[in-house]
Amino acid sequence: MSLIIIGSVAFDAIETPFGKTDKIVGGAATYASLAASYFYDQIKIVGVVGDDFLQSNIKVLNDHGIDTEGLQIKQGEKSFFWSGRYHNDMNSRDTLVTELNVLGDFDPIIPENYQDCEYLMLGNLTPKVQQTVIGRLKNRPKLIVLDTMNFWMDIALEDLLETLKMVDVLTINDAEARQLSGEYSLVKAARKILTMGPRYLIIKKGEHGALLFDEQQIFSAPALPLAEVFDPTGAGDTFAGGFIGYLAKVGTINFNNMKNALIYGSALASFCVEKFGTEKIVNLTKEEIDNRVREFVSLSSFTI
Amino acid sequence: MSLIIIGSVAFDAIETPFGKTDKIVGGAATYASLAASYFYDQIKIVGVVGDDFLQSNIKVLNDHGIDTEGLQIKQGEKSFFWSGRYHNDMNSRDTLVTELNVLGDFDPIIPENYQDCEYLMLGNLTPKVQQTVIGRLKNRPKLIVLDTMNFWMDIALEDLLETLKMVDVLTINDAEARQLSGEYSLVKAARKILTMGPRYLIIKKGEHGALLFDEQQIFSAPALPLAEVFDPTGAGDTFAGGFIGYLAKVGTINFNNMKNALIYGSALASFCVEKFGTEKIVNLTKEEIDNRVREFVSLSSFTI
Repeated sequence: MSLIIIGSVAFDAIETPFGKTDKIVGGAATYASLAASYFYDQIKIVGVVGDDFLQSNIKVLNDHGIDTEGLQIKQGEKSFFWSGRYHNDMNSRDTLVTELNVLGDFDPIIPENYQDCEYLMLGNLTPKVQQTVIGRLKNRPKLIVLDTMNFWMDIALEDLLETLKMVDVLTINDAEARQLSGEYSLVKAARKILTMGPRYLIIKKGEHGALLFDEQQIFSAPALPLAEVFDPTGAGDTFAGGFIGYLAKVGTINFNNMKNALIYGSALASFCVEKFGTEKIVNLTKEEIDNRVREFVSLSSFTI
Repeated sequence: MSLIIIGSVAFDAIETPFGKTDKIVGGAATYASLAASYFYDQIKIVGVVGDDFLQSNIKVLNDHGIDTEGLQIKQGEKSFFWSGRYHNDMNSRDTLVTELNVLGDFDPIIPENYQDCEYLMLGNLTPKVQQTVIGRLKNRPKLIVLDTMNFWMDIALEDLLETLKMVDVLTINDAEARQLSGEYSLVKAARKILTMGPRYLIIKKGEHGALLFDEQQIFSAPALPLAEVFDPTGAGDTFAGGFIGYLAKVGTINFNNMKNALIYGSALASFCVEKFGTEKIVNLTKEEIDNRVREFVSLSSFTI
């Protein structure tokens, strides 16, 4: 049994008030699979890169036990590249460059040994490509988590609504929940979205934490207040990866396990922002993660 | 022993997307004392109104066991009046009218029987007036909570900094914490503010809950996600009143009791926004409050 993570594997160049990077490895599937690897050891990536993506870059993933057989390498082409500059408050950013490159006509390949997929994380991509992946799995996974963004609501809403019908969990941010539902109240937004397909909705609120909804219950996960946010890139993907990785580890899907998965996802995301790119999450110890989760417990526990 | 609450007692006229009111009773001390009255029965108000403030308006406070001997009634003058219109998202509002009236030269009187003050809530007012109240108490209260706002940071920062040295707890919102400290990170902002006088800082984040800081610890209280926010007026004052009322009831000041006080304050505030003005918080039962607090427990509890 395995956890398949599909999404971009890419290069980023990032500027923050604290400094700037050259091209470094990024992409939703990179962040999510690294995060998930701390919980589960049968992780398989589906993605595409150009021949500028080095064997040493792939080795980093393999060293985390991540299977990259589904990562296509297109000779003579270039990897997806994004460059952005964060403002002083780190909550807003300007995209400087987006080069789709190999991602422009990405046709995901599911290797035969990926057909044991039990957990599927559909990272932010064209909804059509996300659908294609579900269609190419012979058996419907036990849990499908979909990440998407406002961009697809703007230009591919019909496709997105079709994809939504096929998944169990949707992760979006608060503005996107409002856009998708047409409701300002997140409670009303969640009620509407939960009629569109997903059984669970996660609304990510950045520095304000995240909300988990099912039809009956709501859980509010805090974000760890941080003295320094060094680079927010990939925090959402890291959160999603930690979330599904934890669920794959515990193996039972229910609201209580989802709550814990949110906390583990948030803990991983809180590491992610401490350094540029994947620098921090590529090298965590179990002890660091356990300590961080204890900080979340202390942050939000009270006894009435 | 008593809890003194000083602040505006006023009339408001409120417009929201759900409707509008005529002049209704409002004011920081009104909301805070009503909220506190559900926890503690020795509450005394210090404030000033004009002769337009009716005996029936005062009776509402007295019926909650609130002592109004310190509420001056200025004959021939008018009560403070504020009118505002909320936008569709309820997070922003336009002030339409502010008439200071009796509040313009408010000189707080502390009746002799108020000198047993153990808990003092300084509602949002000129920092000089807040200082005056502290100065007129013969014994320093066990706990002084100060509420203030960006307006005083803009026009009376020196006075505010003086007042800050005299208090134990400061409640402000996140933008105000950033303004007061010059730090964007709320962790850094809190560290700075905790050197200015208060031992505890509460950062109110509206629909995102509230953070409590002391020198060592952080607690994150969630806000209850609500389907309808009918009228946000007074929610912050209601929160502060519930907070200090709960602490007065338990009688011991420590971080754990403060955490619970935040939850009770948040619960009261979640009622406040359900109807116009004080309509909802004037008439709560213990059972309603207990049930609401249980919703907060369920909202934020997890077992890792």
